[in-house]
Amino acid sequence: MKLGVCYYPEHWPKSRWRADAEHMRKIGIEYVRVGEFSWSTIEPTPGELHWQWLDESLDILHENGLKVILGTPTATPPKWLVDRYPGMLAKDEQGRVRGFGSRRHYTFASLEYREECRRITSLMAQRYGQHPAVASWQTDNEFGCHDTILSYAEADLAAFHIWLKDKYGTIEVLNQAWGNVFWSMEYRSFDEIELPNLTVTEANPSHRVDFQRCCSDQVVAYNKLQVDILREHSAGRDLVHNYMGFFTAFDHHKVGQDLDVASWDTYPLGFLDQEVIYSEEEKHTYLRVGHPDFGAFHHDLYRGCGKGRLWIMEQQPGPVNWAPHNPTPADGAVRLWTWEAFSHGAELVSYFRWRQAPFAQEQMHAGLLRPDAEEAEAAKEAAQVAQEVVKLSAALGMDADELLSLPSAGKVALMFDYDACWSLDIQPQSRAYRYLFWCYRMYEGLRELGLSVDIIPSNAPLDTYQMLVLPAQAHISDDLLARLEAFDGVLLAGPRTGSKTSNYQIPENLAPGPLAKLMPLQVERVDALPNHTQMAVSGAWGEGLLKHWHEQIATDLPCLLKDNSGNPVLVGQGQHYYLGSCLDNGALKASLAKLAEKAGLETYYLPKGVRIRERGELIFVMNYASQTIDFAPEGAELVIGSRRLETANIAIWKKC
Amino acid sequence: MKLGVCYYPEHWPKSRWRADAEHMRKIGIEYVRVGEFSWSTIEPTPGELHWQWLDESLDILHENGLKVILGTPTATPPKWLVDRYPGMLAKDEQGRVRGFGSRRHYTFASLEYREECRRITSLMAQRYGQHPAVASWQTDNEFGCHDTILSYAEADLAAFHIWLKDKYGTIEVLNQAWGNVFWSMEYRSFDEIELPNLTVTEANPSHRVDFQRCCSDQVVAYNKLQVDILREHSAGRDLVHNYMGFFTAFDHHKVGQDLDVASWDTYPLGFLDQEVIYSEEEKHTYLRVGHPDFGAFHHDLYRGCGKGRLWIMEQQPGPVNWAPHNPTPADGAVRLWTWEAFSHGAELVSYFRWRQAPFAQEQMHAGLLRPDAEEAEAAKEAAQVAQEVVKLSAALGMDADELLSLPSAGKVALMFDYDACWSLDIQPQSRAYRYLFWCYRMYEGLRELGLSVDIIPSNAPLDTYQMLVLPAQAHISDDLLARLEAFDGVLLAGPRTGSKTSNYQIPENLAPGPLAKLMPLQVERVDALPNHTQMAVSGAWGEGLLKHWHEQIATDLPCLLKDNSGNPVLVGQGQHYYLGSCLDNGALKASLAKLAEKAGLETYYLPKGVRIRERGELIFVMNYASQTIDFAPEGAELVIGSRRLETANIAIWKKC
Amino acid sequence: MKLGVCYYPEHWPKSRWRADAEHMRKIGIEYVRVGEFSWSTIEPTPGELHWQWLDESLDILHENGLKVILGTPTATPPKWLVDRYPGMLAKDEQGRVRGFGSRRHYTFASLEYREECRRITSLMAQRYGQHPAVASWQTDNEFGCHDTILSYAEADLAAFHIWLKDKYGTIEVLNQAWGNVFWSMEYRSFDEIELPNLTVTEANPSHRVDFQRCCSDQVVAYNKLQVDILREHSAGRDLVHNYMGFFTAFDHHKVGQDLDVASWDTYPLGFLDQEVIYSEEEKHTYLRVGHPDFGAFHHDLYRGCGKGRLWIMEQQPGPVNWAPHNPTPADGAVRLWTWEAFSHGAELVSYFRWRQAPFAQEQMHAGLLRPDAEEAEAAKEAAQVAQEVVKLSAALGMDADELLSLPSAGKVALMFDYDACWSLDIQPQSRAYRYLFWCYRMYEGLRELGLSVDIIPSNAPLDTYQMLVLPAQAHISDDLLARLEAFDGVLLAGPRTGSKTSNYQIPENLAPGPLAKLMPLQVERVDALPNHTQMAVSGAWGEGLLKHWHEQIATDLPCLLKDNSGNPVLVGQGQHYYLGSCLDNGALKASLAKLAEKAGLETYYLPKGVRIRERGELIFVMNYASQTIDFAPEGAELVIGSRRLETANIAIWKKC
Ligand SMILES: [Zn+2]
Ligand SMILES: [Zn+2]
Ligand SMILES: [Zn+2]
Repeated sequence: MKLGVCYYPEHWPKSRWRADAEHMRKIGIEYVRVGEFSWSTIEPTPGELHWQWLDESLDILHENGLKVILGTPTATPPKWLVDRYPGMLAKDEQGRVRGFGSRRHYTFASLEYREECRRITSLMAQRYGQHPAVASWQTDNEFGCHDTILSYAEADLAAFHIWLKDKYGTIEVLNQAWGNVFWSMEYRSFDEIELPNLTVTEANPSHRVDFQRCCSDQVVAYNKLQVDILREHSAGRDLVHNYMGFFTAFDHHKVGQDLDVASWDTYPLGFLDQEVIYSEEEKHTYLRVGHPDFGAFHHDLYRGCGKGRLWIMEQQPGPVNWAPHNPTPADGAVRLWTWEAFSHGAELVSYFRWRQAPFAQEQMHAGLLRPDAEEAEAAKEAAQVAQEVVKLSAALGMDADELLSLPSAGKVALMFDYDACWSLDIQPQSRAYRYLFWCYRMYEGLRELGLSVDIIPSNAPLDTYQMLVLPAQAHISDDLLARLEAFDGVLLAGPRTGSKTSNYQIPENLAPGPLAKLMPLQVERVDALPNHTQMAVSGAWGEGLLKHWHEQIATDLPCLLKDNSGNPVLVGQGQHYYLGSCLDNGALKASLAKLAEKAGLETYYLPKGVRIRERGELIFVMNYASQTIDFAPEGAELVIGSRRLETANIAIWKKC
Repeated sequence: MKLGVCYYPEHWPKSRWRADAEHMRKIGIEYVRVGEFSWSTIEPTPGELHWQWLDESLDILHENGLKVILGTPTATPPKWLVDRYPGMLAKDEQGRVRGFGSRRHYTFASLEYREECRRITSLMAQRYGQHPAVASWQTDNEFGCHDTILSYAEADLAAFHIWLKDKYGTIEVLNQAWGNVFWSMEYRSFDEIELPNLTVTEANPSHRVDFQRCCSDQVVAYNKLQVDILREHSAGRDLVHNYMGFFTAFDHHKVGQDLDVASWDTYPLGFLDQEVIYSEEEKHTYLRVGHPDFGAFHHDLYRGCGKGRLWIMEQQPGPVNWAPHNPTPADGAVRLWTWEAFSHGAELVSYFRWRQAPFAQEQMHAGLLRPDAEEAEAAKEAAQVAQEVVKLSAALGMDADELLSLPSAGKVALMFDYDACWSLDIQPQSRAYRYLFWCYRMYEGLRELGLSVDIIPSNAPLDTYQMLVLPAQAHISDDLLARLEAFDGVLLAGPRTGSKTSNYQIPENLAPGPLAKLMPLQVERVDALPNHTQMAVSGAWGEGLLKHWHEQIATDLPCLLKDNSGNPVLVGQGQHYYLGSCLDNGALKASLAKLAEKAGLETYYLPKGVRIRERGELIFVMNYASQTIDFAPEGAELVIGSRRLETANIAIWKKC
Repeated sequence: MKLGVCYYPEHWPKSRWRADAEHMRKIGIEYVRVGEFSWSTIEPTPGELHWQWLDESLDILHENGLKVILGTPTATPPKWLVDRYPGMLAKDEQGRVRGFGSRRHYTFASLEYREECRRITSLMAQRYGQHPAVASWQTDNEFGCHDTILSYAEADLAAFHIWLKDKYGTIEVLNQAWGNVFWSMEYRSFDEIELPNLTVTEANPSHRVDFQRCCSDQVVAYNKLQVDILREHSAGRDLVHNYMGFFTAFDHHKVGQDLDVASWDTYPLGFLDQEVIYSEEEKHTYLRVGHPDFGAFHHDLYRGCGKGRLWIMEQQPGPVNWAPHNPTPADGAVRLWTWEAFSHGAELVSYFRWRQAPFAQEQMHAGLLRPDAEEAEAAKEAAQVAQEVVKLSAALGMDADELLSLPSAGKVALMFDYDACWSLDIQPQSRAYRYLFWCYRMYEGLRELGLSVDIIPSNAPLDTYQMLVLPAQAHISDDLLARLEAFDGVLLAGPRTGSKTSNYQIPENLAPGPLAKLMPLQVERVDALPNHTQMAVSGAWGEGLLKHWHEQIATDLPCLLKDNSGNPVLVGQGQHYYLGSCLDNGALKASLAKLAEKAGLETYYLPKGVRIRERGELIFVMNYASQTIDFAPEGAELVIGSRRLETANIAIWKKC
């Protein structure tokens, strides 16, 4: 594993640059991300390009043996550019222009802004594409941050008209697909169609889901424009973008197809505090370490978006500034998160940021260094990891590159599909239901059993897995159906699977639609529940509670769990199982354990708050609990750490 | 009782229509509502009218002996019409145009849109006014749904200026009536007046209440325009509109004056989940049956709006899609709701909708048929009701029409006044106070005593009642005062009665204003309480808690309940009683029982969750409780059902 | 102490005026505030001035020996004026114009509106500047009420450009000060700068804090414009403005510099119900008396804004109409609040309002008289106070003026700084943190110890104090540092003190910045906590909980309280102490008691809900608790009241 850091030479006097580089090396940093917010420094007025500062800082980094990930500066266009192209600004759902003064002030659909992106990216790529320090390029920064995927400006409407014409060909086909006859919503031409905001009540869900798809495709095209330029001028360098946590507004699999590596920005404490998925109890329990599955879930998800390659571009190094509350991490937590990432296949973990800035929006966001350039706690933990990497390599008799190529794939796959996410969340039926949250809780169940999981797109090959979970695959395409039929592991499909056609309609044979071929059953009715009503389930496979979503199923399949009226909740046999309700953690875990057993997978009994992850021959044991625990995997010997682990501590074992 | 269904032939292939009609007949359906969202099918482009599909579908229904309620399609004007008259769109309180893409995209005040309504209604009425299938017309659909009564567009301002001039004559009179001297709000002409939105702090309440009245009158005029056309071309058919639950933004009594029957759309589970009136405990207890008084309250309210005639135009048949959570009804609940409606005088109960649509906004809304055309649970319950109606007629020795004309009026009246609702809610003093909620809780108290209640407008004759409740009749007009003086039953006036003049001012003699003639007392001060402070009351008439609203009363009348400082809460003697606070259910019920006794009315002691309703000689017993109950009214014999009733079951008894 | 009342002759028939004046005198009223909302009565159409009504009413008041506080009517410009200058209207943060229809419909930055203010103020001052009844002028009314300080209209942007140019001189200096390099936010000219609203994510905090400062300065200039005119035409009269509770959006110290007296409008029940600072338990306990420190805190704060002179311009006399819930005060509470004000130095307590208006927005707001002109409860309590003032004067052997000049300053000072408030709240790090609330809770701790406190601006002389508390003085100026060094009492600095430079940056030596000179320590890291996580503290000075804000401090100073990891929380020695966390009431009070002891100040042990305040030789004992209490200060004799005090009762003691 390599360590990296995010660095802003433009924020500091030139006189500091060399000392910074030396200090990075001393800690064990090898990669430095540079440049992604620097447009106004590069081009303070239109066409007047100031490269010298960047030349110099890249040279200094290079001289100190550091490799650079160079960011295109397109997430922060300068004021003069915005003033020149006011139509590039996004509008929010209320129709208000989202102005200059912070960042991400553009809509992906703006052709004017894309031209400016082409210009600045070309200039940068031409100048630094072959610079010896430049090992990689990051396109833009955190696509979609601050809710910037859906925009309701003129540029977006123009893009939507083109996208719809391209998809449907004629307006009659669209009217039919959307069911516009429903409320006299029929259009006579594509140009009559408006964006689905500011309607009197909810717009047609087909209209909404198509708009989401269109906006996602704008991101893909926007990224591709930069990728093409960078490939031309800087061939061989890894192209990467930095994704975010719990963010589903564009199709990361599609964007990932055009890049070499997927990276993401991981802030375990900020997300714990901010996200409604977590209960108040979880927020309290994991205040200083983050939820035990937060990092893991995203590592596995984004490795799946990165064609197997994963980096952490921004790792939280201390308190951040943007969550409702911003506590300090437990001692050891930064090291824990770093090793957790490695255990899921990360090649690089880069901390955000080098030195805490004393000014502007993020002045309360910690860095490896404090504002006074002294080391903060995280610098020490990063240095410890760097030393442990050396120790681990030595123990395995590997060099650094061999360590990076340790296999990280799991034997269990969980299918995550952005289109399914949009489709189901647009009409959740119960406010307690969210696609992402249900996927996360299924992942949590698998991981609490000690299973190493891959999170895969719906078009991924399935042949390496012994078990496959479809949490809620709304639409089952012909292609997916064929691959599911060919799959020879154990398959579990969750509630809402197969409930929509490709046009956002209910299948003619009802849910689970085409999947009924593998699992002969029919979802007759849906009971969408508030949080205050959870129902008992029990049966051959255990007991517990169902909640949020509860399907009434007609089937002759064996029934493994029933609700308290005796209706089937979990059914199936042989390789194929269908779960018609969301279950609580206990019942879910028990059922997943049964399925894993059928799939021939070994599971663990882990103390609460403890997780393990396997990579190659290694077993990582991580303690997110508040108590000290004592745990040793069977048939393995210690490489780093000990059986006894305090909060936020880790151990690395090697299978004997 | 007749059964009906809402049907959308335009949503299905023509080849299905005959099978649908036959299936309806088989279940026992006699009425079919058609057409109310079909404008774009009728007139896909301006002036090009496609009647053939409607001709054919009416003919098929007619051939199968089904009667049609034909809807004017004005709730969903097509896109081309909106593009032609953009000024017809409403604006919300924030000044944003409420655009096309769902339904109800118009403001009632738009004269341009009214012309279009006149055109399409005339065309439809001319074509189908004498069609043998057409038994009735529905005007538009659910006036006000999606918060569409108050609109802040140019058309609304123009209408408001006319309305104000008409009401006040001169600007001086208006300034005086509104008390505009208060904050230098005086106007020099009507044209200076703006709509009462986007003010720095709250606008003058007189300004606000007049705007509400004006908007309500726009609805009356809008409806009347269609009524006049329909009367001309389709004389003798019942004209009806379908109102909604817990909706008070226009004066339903005024609209009802122009129609023949009142109907409403009843969704007991959706409203239970959605409405803040219900406690979390009620939402949990009645999750699958709805609150025991929801249907009843509205049946009695709308029968009062319909000059004694009541239909249910849309009855929930299974889970809906639009509430925050959408559970399935208990088995039997659809039948329970249908009989509850009949017991309150309903002539027709029509289910929404025939077949679940697999597309567009309501694809998760159940119908009598599933999307695959198989029967859903509700179809079986409707069929059962149809058979029970036959059995009941036989048992009574009546034919179907005689059954319809069984008397349904009660001996207790509760006065409900839309103007009082607006007046009091504009300045609630305590956020815990809402006029509608207080009326509902008073109604609940009466109904828990087994009383059959009429809910009447303030201009209704009073002579048939033994007891009259004015929950909070803000303004006592001269006419009402005269009728109250002449009333020879027992009168109870609740808090805030008589607290406003017709101009939204405090009466010179303070509340209860003119009513002090009947009840010599004065409201000296108001104590408006948060939920966390409820105060004990006790006295000759019982004990319990007061909450939300607490008046300090000066009077020499006998005091029947006092607060814990000894101040009078409930006072009166002989025929006239005044209640100065909102009471909890226990104290309220005890006091109402005392008053009923004085009025010579018999009351029942009913198990929790059980309700009865009398109609003619019949007594309906309905179990909304979760438990099985055992209940038999004295001196009555069973006609349908049994003493022992499970959840959601009903029994019909006949007085011996 | 003088009593006053707010009176609106324009609301009542002329025939009432004389009776009103006589009734006021009878109660003991000496001052009458008049005119502040009367522009449309004075000038119903442009340029047509109607003075006669005001001439007459001032004459009648004068004839009855009443003194007048005359308000400039600029808080309520008439409709014709707004129509003439639509650019004078404010825009809210969402960019919506805040229109006519209530009050305060202007932005302070509008030069057009300032011209109109100059015109009407000049006319009024010329006419009444020398009127014998006029003792004082009030400028406008409640600056900032209804969130009207920050406005985002064109006039505000123009004012901001001027303000920034004036402050920074060149754009380079601004870019540096704001750290605009951070996200390419650099500007090339002042004219490129926009207002900090409607940005994609938060604007630069330096941008935001400067905008707040600029808006505050607009208020100062707006007030000064009127002051200059009034001084010219009405020299010798007290100029005053009426501030509000819990309101910090402009710098009251700066506005106060231009006036003679500070006054404020005190609504103890409305604020208790409305403000999030109070817990649900406090809202319940103090429902009818208000929080025990609400009045006191503001009296001491505004006396500090008034250069030692304090009036109450509006005292709640009964239930109000504008809080979420509006209960009646306990019997005696109005008298309690009046004496509480006097004990803090108030010269005048004026009740709002004379007679309850039966019309317009505030028709549910009580007055001394009811709408029917009968006395409400408060009139009796005011009359009682008037008699007690006579009794107190007699007991002290003083005349009324001598009573007014009793010294009211305390020996403990708490520094309150509007600029610190804005700075810290713009980036609170934990939503549970608010500068004002923390200051209030520190004040509460001091007051529960029976200490009489001055609340002072950051430029106040310190030499009269034995103890000084800086709750969170964000920026320590050179001047303040010098005065702190010279201060020879005990100094306590709280968390976040010294954490910002004047340019809203982190100091080079980290917090507490320059204060480290007096207290050698460094804040290494901040742990900003959610409400659900409070941590134990303990040490030589007591034990309790820390919450919301928790600093990690490096220091060699003696540690008096530690957190549960042993990190220092409260450190210091000799005269200088630093507290790095917010503490709960128990721990805070214990520490403040230790500091008071070191400062040589005597403290009290008071029953819960009881407060005392000293003024001159007098000791006021006030019971806000629900129970009757028994309390006698040592070495003092009763002047008014008794040892035993029921809820809302007071006693006045005199030191022997
Ligand atoms: Zn971000
Ligand atoms: Zn509706
Ligand atoms: Zn105010």
